Amino acid sequence: MINFSWQVEYQSKNNNARTGILTTPHGKINTPAFIFCATKGALKSLTTNIAIDNNTQIILSNTFHLMLQPGSDLIANHGGLHRFLNWNGPMLTDSGGFQIFSLGYGSVADEIKGSANIKRNKTLLSISEEGSLFKSYVDGSFKLLSPEKSIEIQRNLGADLILVFDECTPFHVDKSYTEMSMRRSHRWATRSLNRFNSQIKYKPCFGSAGEQKLYGIVQGGIYEDLREESIEFNLNKIDKFGIAIGGSLGSSKEEMYKVVNFTAPKLGNKYPIHLLGIGDPRDIWNLVKSGIDTFDCVSPTRLARHGSALIKGKLGKKNIKNKKFANDLSPVDTTCGCSTCKNYSLAYLHHLFKAEELLGLQLVTAHNIYFMNQLMKLIRISIENDSLDKAEKDWFS
Amino acid sequence: MINFSWQVEYQSKNNNARTGILTTPHGKINTPAFIFCATKGALKSLTTNIAIDNNTQIILSNTFHLMLQPGSDLIANHGGLHRFLNWNGPMLTDSGGFQIFSLGYGSVADEIKGSANIKRNKTLLSISEEGSLFKSYVDGSFKLLSPEKSIEIQRNLGADLILVFDECTPFHVDKSYTEMSMRRSHRWATRSLNRFNSQIKYKPCFGSAGEQKLYGIVQGGIYEDLREESIEFNLNKIDKFGIAIGGSLGSSKEEMYKVVNFTAPKLGNKYPIHLLGIGDPRDIWNLVKSGIDTFDCVSPTRLARHGSALIKGKLGKKNIKNKKFANDLSPVDTTCGCSTCKNYSLAYLHHLFKAEELLGLQLVTAHNIYFMNQLMKLIRISIENDSLDKAEKDWFS
Repeated sequence: MINFSWQVEYQSKNNNARTGILTTPHGKINTPAFIFCATKGALKSLTTNIAIDNNTQIILSNTFHLMLQPGSDLIANHGGLHRFLNWNGPMLTDSGGFQIFSLGYGSVADEIKGSANIKRNKTLLSISEEGSLFKSYVDGSFKLLSPEKSIEIQRNLGADLILVFDECTPFHVDKSYTEMSMRRSHRWATRSLNRFNSQIKYKPCFGSAGEQKLYGIVQGGIYEDLREESIEFNLNKIDKFGIAIGGSLGSSKEEMYKVVNFTAPKLGNKYPIHLLGIGDPRDIWNLVKSGIDTFDCVSPTRLARHGSALIKGKLGKKNIKNKKFANDLSPVDTTCGCSTCKNYSLAYLHHLFKAEELLGLQLVTAHNIYFMNQLMKLIRISIENDSLDKAEKDWFS
Repeated sequence: MINFSWQVEYQSKNNNARTGILTTPHGKINTPAFIFCATKGALKSLTTNIAIDNNTQIILSNTFHLMLQPGSDLIANHGGLHRFLNWNGPMLTDSGGFQIFSLGYGSVADEIKGSANIKRNKTLLSISEEGSLFKSYVDGSFKLLSPEKSIEIQRNLGADLILVFDECTPFHVDKSYTEMSMRRSHRWATRSLNRFNSQIKYKPCFGSAGEQKLYGIVQGGIYEDLREESIEFNLNKIDKFGIAIGGSLGSSKEEMYKVVNFTAPKLGNKYPIHLLGIGDPRDIWNLVKSGIDTFDCVSPTRLARHGSALIKGKLGKKNIKNKKFANDLSPVDTTCGCSTCKNYSLAYLHHLFKAEELLGLQLVTAHNIYFMNQLMKLIRISIENDSLDKAEKDWFS
């Protein structure tokens, strides 16, 4: 029985875009696909059943958050995260590496918008060869996250796809720091792999959430020679199922496109390629052409909670709180088949946000999730029709 | 075609309890039944679809809140509240009378707990023969709610069952105020009825949410002679479909039981009897024996948002936030068939509340709604088996 597999279904004639099928013990993912963030084990305002109703293929949760609250032993007691949060589909966990970066410097999106903190905040205490020392936001205690610890936690959580532990270097550090950090992340990747191989299941007595597969992460910031070195490491030095592109993607969209377009094609099509932390439809249209197979970002669900419903076109969203929607009897998008657009008007959603009714967050989240899944479906169809450029142009016109 | 009807199905041999079927153009309600509060047009954190999945028969919304935000004209534009909030089942709206009381004095529950404000707060400006003048909590503007205005708004909203406009007198006022207020509420009831009869549909061009039927309200506080006078008024002086019991129910549960047990039996079984603002299972077990057919209260959904999951027994609830549930792999109630108990553990719910994840509010709300609907179903079966006392005893043992 093959629990895991990766197969490219169609390779574009015009660029590096491709469609594929990523098979896990919890189901198949048609790629390119979007992975939604259940950061702390919940899609914020949405049940997993509604996420499925709106075509969700895969979700992710975060090692960093779950190790602090409720703790991975407790989740292992449940037989894993799938059962804990009632999700029977494919799942990924990150290694906690991205959160070290966020804690220390601000998020990738902040950085691309130029609003990242230049100074580290006080939650991240130190990064050493051993791992990362930080202060728990739950109880203020000191915690060390190391490659071994990250893998142990991810073994406990039991997601199908898990990541090696890395430092996600920011843009504003110099090349020598990026190089040093990258090489340390490579050593951490080797340690992650060793720990991964030494324990099929960290606590097998707790029941099984199925087999797991490991992703490596390409570092190197915006420096092509460093990216080359990291690509070489990931392709030839560690045993992995998939490869993620991490680290700094620069300080502008142009730089990000350049880094990804330099990196992804060199990774070939033997492994599914994940791009960490990117969710803007404009970026997704662009970066599937470099060969990215999966994306994740909190943005679709976070935007929803701020009242932004995603739509096609240059504008990209409707601000539900805008007064102009107060008496608008049409749904967010008359052509949308989501559970929200089928049942509710803009006027109702506007009312819910004005009246601070929790239901509003849930309904716009459901729309944004369906929207992203439809976007990815359209991209898959367009790749297989060799009409990606036209479809992208139509999308924004 | 009969759009509305009321029929007693079984009259208990032991007390005034009865089962019945209340038919509306949007469906039938098996009584005794609980009506859930979609105060501002939403069941707070829950979609109407999930409410239906958890056996909800009927919901109510509030004239007072909806007149201020988003306004009843807007809802009429939608063809009524049913379409606005995506609920195709039976619906009731209150007249705004209860909110005058809440604004001025605190809620019924506050009063029974002895924690009502003795002084009126500043939102309620005055009550006169014309109606009630108050300050909008949305924009600070002055608003008058009169019997005519309340009925016009309720015609716009289009709920199946609507209420005459009344003042819900508090306990701490003296008998002479209660008497004066009751007689004014009777005059308001007549004005409500006149307005109701003069307009089949306030703005019929806006589409139809179906026919509507009016409930009278029995006032008189804790004074039996006043309750007698109000019962006589409601039975013989106005044309109504059902009768609600309103006004002060005293300052203790014993007093409330006494008032309801004095009033409800005298109303007979020709009309469905609604008790306003009561939702504690202990009270419901007790008061169905007086002949109450429907109850409403925010408590099941409000308790859920505070982390209290309703259970059988003397305790009556589990506080999800209690540390003892942190590692409890069982659901709230192993015998419960709600969408939450079927899919989620106490440990997960505890985690969601600790992590301040919105999903927690939704999942406990779904449980509490199912719980109340199961309670009412058990009560109906027990009435028809003439085993109500035994069923009540078992419930709390």
